[in-house]
Amino acid sequence: MIKAGIIGGAGYTGLELIRLLLMHPEVEISVVTSRRYKGKKISDVNPHLEPFIELEYEDVDTKEIADRSDIVFLAVPHGSAMDYVPELRAREARVIDLSADYRLKKDEYERIYKRQHKDKDKEKRKSVYGLAELHPEVADANLIANPGCYPTGAILAVAPLVKGNEGGGRVKQVVFDSKSGISGAGAEPSAKSHFPNLAENIIPYEVTAHRHVAEMRMELSVKVSFTPHIIPSIRGILTTAHVFIEESGAQTQDEIEEIYKRFYEGKRFIRLRKGLPSLSAVRGTNFCDIGLKIEEESDRIVVISAIDNLVKGGSGQAIQNMNLMFGMDEREGLWFPGLVP
Amino acid sequence: MIKAGIIGGAGYTGLELIRLLLMHPEVEISVVTSRRYKGKKISDVNPHLEPFIELEYEDVDTKEIADRSDIVFLAVPHGSAMDYVPELRAREARVIDLSADYRLKKDEYERIYKRQHKDKDKEKRKSVYGLAELHPEVADANLIANPGCYPTGAILAVAPLVKGNEGGGRVKQVVFDSKSGISGAGAEPSAKSHFPNLAENIIPYEVTAHRHVAEMRMELSVKVSFTPHIIPSIRGILTTAHVFIEESGAQTQDEIEEIYKRFYEGKRFIRLRKGLPSLSAVRGTNFCDIGLKIEEESDRIVVISAIDNLVKGGSGQAIQNMNLMFGMDEREGLWFPGLVP
Amino acid sequence: MIKAGIIGGAGYTGLELIRLLLMHPEVEISVVTSRRYKGKKISDVNPHLEPFIELEYEDVDTKEIADRSDIVFLAVPHGSAMDYVPELRAREARVIDLSADYRLKKDEYERIYKRQHKDKDKEKRKSVYGLAELHPEVADANLIANPGCYPTGAILAVAPLVKGNEGGGRVKQVVFDSKSGISGAGAEPSAKSHFPNLAENIIPYEVTAHRHVAEMRMELSVKVSFTPHIIPSIRGILTTAHVFIEESGAQTQDEIEEIYKRFYEGKRFIRLRKGLPSLSAVRGTNFCDIGLKIEEESDRIVVISAIDNLVKGGSGQAIQNMNLMFGMDEREGLWFPGLVP
Amino acid sequence: MIKAGIIGGAGYTGLELIRLLLMHPEVEISVVTSRRYKGKKISDVNPHLEPFIELEYEDVDTKEIADRSDIVFLAVPHGSAMDYVPELRAREARVIDLSADYRLKKDEYERIYKRQHKDKDKEKRKSVYGLAELHPEVADANLIANPGCYPTGAILAVAPLVKGNEGGGRVKQVVFDSKSGISGAGAEPSAKSHFPNLAENIIPYEVTAHRHVAEMRMELSVKVSFTPHIIPSIRGILTTAHVFIEESGAQTQDEIEEIYKRFYEGKRFIRLRKGLPSLSAVRGTNFCDIGLKIEEESDRIVVISAIDNLVKGGSGQAIQNMNLMFGMDEREGLWFPGLVP
Repeated sequence: MIKAGIIGGAGYTGLELIRLLLMHPEVEISVVTSRRYKGKKISDVNPHLEPFIELEYEDVDTKEIADRSDIVFLAVPHGSAMDYVPELRAREARVIDLSADYRLKKDEYERIYKRQHKDKDKEKRKSVYGLAELHPEVADANLIANPGCYPTGAILAVAPLVKGNEGGGRVKQVVFDSKSGISGAGAEPSAKSHFPNLAENIIPYEVTAHRHVAEMRMELSVKVSFTPHIIPSIRGILTTAHVFIEESGAQTQDEIEEIYKRFYEGKRFIRLRKGLPSLSAVRGTNFCDIGLKIEEESDRIVVISAIDNLVKGGSGQAIQNMNLMFGMDEREGLWFPGLVP
Repeated sequence: MIKAGIIGGAGYTGLELIRLLLMHPEVEISVVTSRRYKGKKISDVNPHLEPFIELEYEDVDTKEIADRSDIVFLAVPHGSAMDYVPELRAREARVIDLSADYRLKKDEYERIYKRQHKDKDKEKRKSVYGLAELHPEVADANLIANPGCYPTGAILAVAPLVKGNEGGGRVKQVVFDSKSGISGAGAEPSAKSHFPNLAENIIPYEVTAHRHVAEMRMELSVKVSFTPHIIPSIRGILTTAHVFIEESGAQTQDEIEEIYKRFYEGKRFIRLRKGLPSLSAVRGTNFCDIGLKIEEESDRIVVISAIDNLVKGGSGQAIQNMNLMFGMDEREGLWFPGLVP
Repeated sequence: MIKAGIIGGAGYTGLELIRLLLMHPEVEISVVTSRRYKGKKISDVNPHLEPFIELEYEDVDTKEIADRSDIVFLAVPHGSAMDYVPELRAREARVIDLSADYRLKKDEYERIYKRQHKDKDKEKRKSVYGLAELHPEVADANLIANPGCYPTGAILAVAPLVKGNEGGGRVKQVVFDSKSGISGAGAEPSAKSHFPNLAENIIPYEVTAHRHVAEMRMELSVKVSFTPHIIPSIRGILTTAHVFIEESGAQTQDEIEEIYKRFYEGKRFIRLRKGLPSLSAVRGTNFCDIGLKIEEESDRIVVISAIDNLVKGGSGQAIQNMNLMFGMDEREGLWFPGLVP
Repeated sequence: MIKAGIIGGAGYTGLELIRLLLMHPEVEISVVTSRRYKGKKISDVNPHLEPFIELEYEDVDTKEIADRSDIVFLAVPHGSAMDYVPELRAREARVIDLSADYRLKKDEYERIYKRQHKDKDKEKRKSVYGLAELHPEVADANLIANPGCYPTGAILAVAPLVKGNEGGGRVKQVVFDSKSGISGAGAEPSAKSHFPNLAENIIPYEVTAHRHVAEMRMELSVKVSFTPHIIPSIRGILTTAHVFIEESGAQTQDEIEEIYKRFYEGKRFIRLRKGLPSLSAVRGTNFCDIGLKIEEESDRIVVISAIDNLVKGGSGQAIQNMNLMFGMDEREGLWFPGLVP
């Protein structure tokens, strides 16, 4: 059994790691930390986990966690993960960081996140961007930078057009317009998550300046625009990618679909849809559902992707990466249908 | 592997059987029927099931289904199940009927459901009311009448007070006020399920005359009133049981909680809560969460139960019964935490 | 023009007073206070009010408010209103208090709200309980204690049975099971109002001990039980009253409906429904919709009432009272249909 | 008093006309038709309208309606309005058509709506596109083609950039990504409006081929792309306009805001927001709220508009047009704040 530690186990990402790892046949959760709840039984604080976990929340002791774990998941805020990584790695624990701290180049990170990167060996560590469908090298990584929730759905939506040999080189510009459930904003009540503010509403925010755009640009290397919104739903991100190509009409709907099929062949968590995807079918799962439509007499292709932001957009993807790092089938512990209806 | 057939696999109950059985390690789905969709791939009609099931929907051929299945689930409307049971049983398939057809005594059934019971051997068949927590005899049954969704949560909420030795004999009256997600009304669009009618609303219906009250009365043998409502949620039934007892103040909160604890000892799907239960913690699961509060200087105890109407209130409970019928642990295939948040 | 001041104009009750008074042809808002936002333009803090109000929030200066207003609405927390009333009354401003401070007898108030009543002339002031349908004496009052949101819907639902000559004396017991939108919990984000906690859920709370039961008992003088729940909706309270009567079957559905009709004759904000009411039809309005059903062969009558908690259950009712105090038609400024769909 | 007739008074658009006209001080509703409900009291079918309207639904008799009305609103499906217009106009009733039948040039209409235009005098009638903020000539019109719900919010969002002298000529391309409440899909239950399908979801549809794009192109004369989605809300359309301009950085945020201010000066239903608009503030109102943000170091400006699809996006705008046709202030009957929360 793989021993897995979780630093930051009281937020939604940490809780989702627990929920999913409890169903994983090859993993045993070894330690879960929470500064706020240390000493409390995890299932007392989170009644949905009763009676599945007997552990109590612990305070963070990086050394001890490294010793008790084969792999450590960092489900902490941006800027905190880099405090733990050096020591965890020094003790040879493998690490999957769900924060942004190891996703971008140092300069880019410091510019975008407006803070200094405190890990002086940041670049040496060779963290791998954990989008397994595009980065098979996760299998050999010791430190994985798990992608942001928005970039996961956005990048997967257009990668075959931008990066594939067949689609490649012809994309001029992509506008990502994303719609996320509120759980992406975390477990703490806020004005945005206040029910009367969100119900019967949709909230655009950081419409030109969301930090996740940096990941999209890093991975896609084309002109990318990104605007996120929060919809009155708990889970899920639906991304509408408006893709503009050089030569309109050069390829048919069928041809484009074929490009996607080949690009994602063997990628078990990508489901290409005949129609358009929606959030229901991915609820609670690690799937990324993709559908597309070319606009007639136009240079636009609309690609829609749907993920569960807490699973494929976070904790599920982290476990998929863990599976690959430990030589298992990527589906282990993650292979079940969505909660429909 | 147990071979399981499902008659009526396109409604919510049938789909939930498929979703859950796909995760069951000892079961293989042998056949799924749907008159409307016969010949279509199940996962084409229900994209959330892709790529978990390769079967197509078939037309109903009772004999063949019996031959291909060790157990058959009937997820059909009231009044239809009795068309299938005689032949299924004649060919020795075990049957779990999720409709109302075998829950009540013949007379009672005919009075309440306003139709004749067509199975002339109805009483001989000795169907067992499949509320396993109260009816351990499900383990020996060949025909199980799976309880209604409302009765499941209602009966479990008050059984320890009504039926337990310690609580028994002192309950004068129970008022069940239930709040259900709309999925209980089925997969067909209707005025009730029309989003603008249900969102920002709550719909009381059949406030004095819902048929499920007959099951509650059969099981509880005290004065029972029942009023259901539909809330703007997909899944879940929260039942508020207002229990009136003979002698107010005779027992403390702790004593009452102790009665529940003893009554449900070893019942793995009952979770007694320190606080009050809510629907989130049971979402997608087979749990029935129960919490209660005695009213000071009063003869009232308020007991709240929460279930997922499609799981413990339907398909999950059916599988729990199947597990017991086949000598397995009742938790097999059903032992995972709820989808929170 | 009547000059109306509002103390506490940044919460939902205060904002709803502003929204409604802006549509009132005979009223001019003279002053609105908010400690948190003093000095800020009201419509900057609340963009839905632009360009309808030019005022800024002011700090509370009771004397000045009294001088600038013919009537002052107190939309402040319980325990604060009594700080303002003595001075406001000393300067002869009429007062409508939307808090609980003047609703109950002093002893009862202190017992239930667990604080001392600081207004030494509390009893002398002869505050009138502002449920105009039952208390025509609001027309002559100088100080009105506006009813709580739950009591408004609950009391109106059963008053004809409990207080009418024809229904009177025969009600044994009433169980009120209420379902409220979250706006009743106020404008401040909290765990209860956190979208992922409330969506797809229903939250029972204070199931045996909600303070509003005291008002119901005061007005109804029968055995009353009360349990509130929060539903995933912004506005509205639906109350299900389970009424138990002495002699079952003594009166028919038609006879009971007739009792209601006579009792509420001329009460313009009561709409008796042929079917069951729902929240949509009262959204944004001052109506209380009522429907009922007698249970056959039983001693139970189920009465359902629906109100908008912020209008008839709060600010609208306050304005209805103001209308009567100033000799106007009670409908002035409140006579419009609900926002459907 | 202006006598207003409504053909098609049982759908959401017709009902919203009734709701709003009932609050209009200068209008009397003279006749309302519904084939399905003819002979039934309008307020029996729609309990929220009790006791505001005494009329019954009538069958359609164009001549009689023309005789009894100064103005007739057509709230009927596309393709039906052109059946009524010739006779209504022959009898000199002014007409506001809320369908698409008179919005586009004949050829364009026939191409997009895939049907022949049956009114042989279509072009002669000089229908005016009823977006009053851009078409002051509505004041002199006898036949108004009320804009579609999506085009209303989309066109208003970018008109100052595209059509204004100062912004003009520099917009290269606009991508409209719209999110609508489900009421736009009408009062009939459907798979899309089925609560379990829409709740916790967002539904993209006609992502490259929605017919409303034709109106946007007609009014804006720049390269326009349009993709609509349905969000789990009853009312409202939020449109995110991704506007790409020729010279990036040519104008500052303040300068662009100034362009909007000047362009919409005196337009009372346009509210320019300092921040980003949301659906709550326009709920139930005729406002179009607009906010924008220029993207730094980019050629993109994101403009967000929010409307209530049934009011400014339909019936309210129709009444605004009526006001102008009859020489009244455009705000008459429409001047009230939104239902917040």
